[in-house]
Amino acid sequence: MSKEFEIIEQVFRRRAGSSPNVTLGIGDDAALTRLPVGSELVTATDALVAGTHFLEDAPARSIGHRCLAVNLSDIAAMGAEPLWASLALGLPRVDRTWLNDFADGFFALAEQAGVTLIGGDTVRGGLFASLTLQGFVPAGQAVRRSGAAAGDLIYVTGHPGDASAGRLRLSDELAAVDTADAADIAQANDLLVERFYYPMPRLAAGKGLRGLATAMIDISDGLHIDLARLLEASGVGAELDVAKIPLSAALENTVKRPRAIELALCGGEDYELCFTVAPDNIAGLHARAENWDCALSCLGTVTAGPGLAWCQAGEPYGVPESGFEHFI
Amino acid sequence: MSKEFEIIEQVFRRRAGSSPNVTLGIGDDAALTRLPVGSELVTATDALVAGTHFLEDAPARSIGHRCLAVNLSDIAAMGAEPLWASLALGLPRVDRTWLNDFADGFFALAEQAGVTLIGGDTVRGGLFASLTLQGFVPAGQAVRRSGAAAGDLIYVTGHPGDASAGRLRLSDELAAVDTADAADIAQANDLLVERFYYPMPRLAAGKGLRGLATAMIDISDGLHIDLARLLEASGVGAELDVAKIPLSAALENTVKRPRAIELALCGGEDYELCFTVAPDNIAGLHARAENWDCALSCLGTVTAGPGLAWCQAGEPYGVPESGFEHFI
Repeated sequence: MSKEFEIIEQVFRRRAGSSPNVTLGIGDDAALTRLPVGSELVTATDALVAGTHFLEDAPARSIGHRCLAVNLSDIAAMGAEPLWASLALGLPRVDRTWLNDFADGFFALAEQAGVTLIGGDTVRGGLFASLTLQGFVPAGQAVRRSGAAAGDLIYVTGHPGDASAGRLRLSDELAAVDTADAADIAQANDLLVERFYYPMPRLAAGKGLRGLATAMIDISDGLHIDLARLLEASGVGAELDVAKIPLSAALENTVKRPRAIELALCGGEDYELCFTVAPDNIAGLHARAENWDCALSCLGTVTAGPGLAWCQAGEPYGVPESGFEHFI
Repeated sequence: MSKEFEIIEQVFRRRAGSSPNVTLGIGDDAALTRLPVGSELVTATDALVAGTHFLEDAPARSIGHRCLAVNLSDIAAMGAEPLWASLALGLPRVDRTWLNDFADGFFALAEQAGVTLIGGDTVRGGLFASLTLQGFVPAGQAVRRSGAAAGDLIYVTGHPGDASAGRLRLSDELAAVDTADAADIAQANDLLVERFYYPMPRLAAGKGLRGLATAMIDISDGLHIDLARLLEASGVGAELDVAKIPLSAALENTVKRPRAIELALCGGEDYELCFTVAPDNIAGLHARAENWDCALSCLGTVTAGPGLAWCQAGEPYGVPESGFEHFI
């Protein structure tokens, strides 16, 4: 490793944080950690690459935030609590301002989520941030994708569609024809871009759903496709109503309703949770959800037969084919 | 994720392997694993990037092998045993032949080392492979860099310098003036390139040194700089003799001796172990080392005072300034 890159690693080392579970952090050949007694280790890895997951000129603070947020979302989707992370960072050049901004975004969220940075690698190359994040659940209590049963109700947190609208806004792909007649489009745009740049993973909800949700997934690739994955893993189907999809005021003020629904279903980049709960537990769900600081919406019901059927005003609703393809 | 990239992940999923410690592998939001009772988790992250750590036209099989080997070497350097890995792979395009070759290299070594692939991410972008590898040691028994004491003897495994000579050979940087007068340079070159493309991490030695070595480091950045790091972490110095550096026949047949010594000290890319052992334990070391299938050489002695002093024929030897900078 060059001296220049060693200096970078010292920046991260100084800000890495500490935890009683981390016996030895950054600075040796490998880190040493201990898992809380009786728990299982939960591991997520997601990488963000310039040009694919963010534009080259995206704020460094956002990239630092997002590379952690997208992985926290996966940990939340297992009903787990985060512990520590390893970061591999590819950099075309050493730019101290950029690095400090990246670190600001990363560590602000890390402190909030209780995550210690235990190691990683800084390499010269194209700009990317690859993070492996680990958390824990009491052994056997992780919420998988595969536990949904016929009759369960299907929920989603937050307001899907916002982040992808923000992403499209950034690359000037929110076509004029989509635009609604609102007076406050500029403000709504800012909110949507903020939702793309700084998603807030649903850690409280994820943990709170342990022992309550029968299946859970995060909808980073889009509500429709990720729900389809959950149903497939569970061997069931679903009937849902697009009218129940919770659209934010910002989204509705920016694009017309049919487009807003499409973005909510297929846009991706929403680090929200989609999960299923048995009807008997709905009261318990609402009691717990009071502490989660996010919207909670019931979209439909799990069916025994296969297939994911959306309806609109009593008629079948055809979900657009377009898959989620990031910026490219 | 695009359908194309989902297909890639299925390739990895099919070959991921299994282990009683892996409760849930690839295919959910995150993996679930259990740590052997009474053990500490050991985590290493190293990323390889095209143009920096390997040439764009390097064999895919080598890249697959090396991204695992370099991390196994870090696990070995802690005296730990490997368990599972998460792989983030950046790909400019989907090339099935390349991918199968990469997977062949990766999984051949994974099977040999007993490593299960538990997750990761495949992303479109510049070519890189970032791996987080985890292993375990009985709690409190990891070998750190910081335990060397005055009087300890300093050892290195294998033949440092070979891999960097192979790397320089690939980029035509082994200048003619370096070349020795051997008849079998071509064959030696093949061996050196092989040592660069397919390093074999010293897992048996690393584990065997648990409870025996007072400090250990892998010398991936070069014997000199990595030994300096070990000494600094331990707050000690060392006196060593360059004549004791074990040069391979292949290296000595390819470059003249002074250059061979430089490469062995500063070349980097050697996934060998450098460690210290108290004099009382030397007999025990040699007894254990019989099973390690690698050369073992004593280079010198740890001193109480600081500084890393190499000598040659009784005179001080000045280590060249050149740091290790990969291909760029």
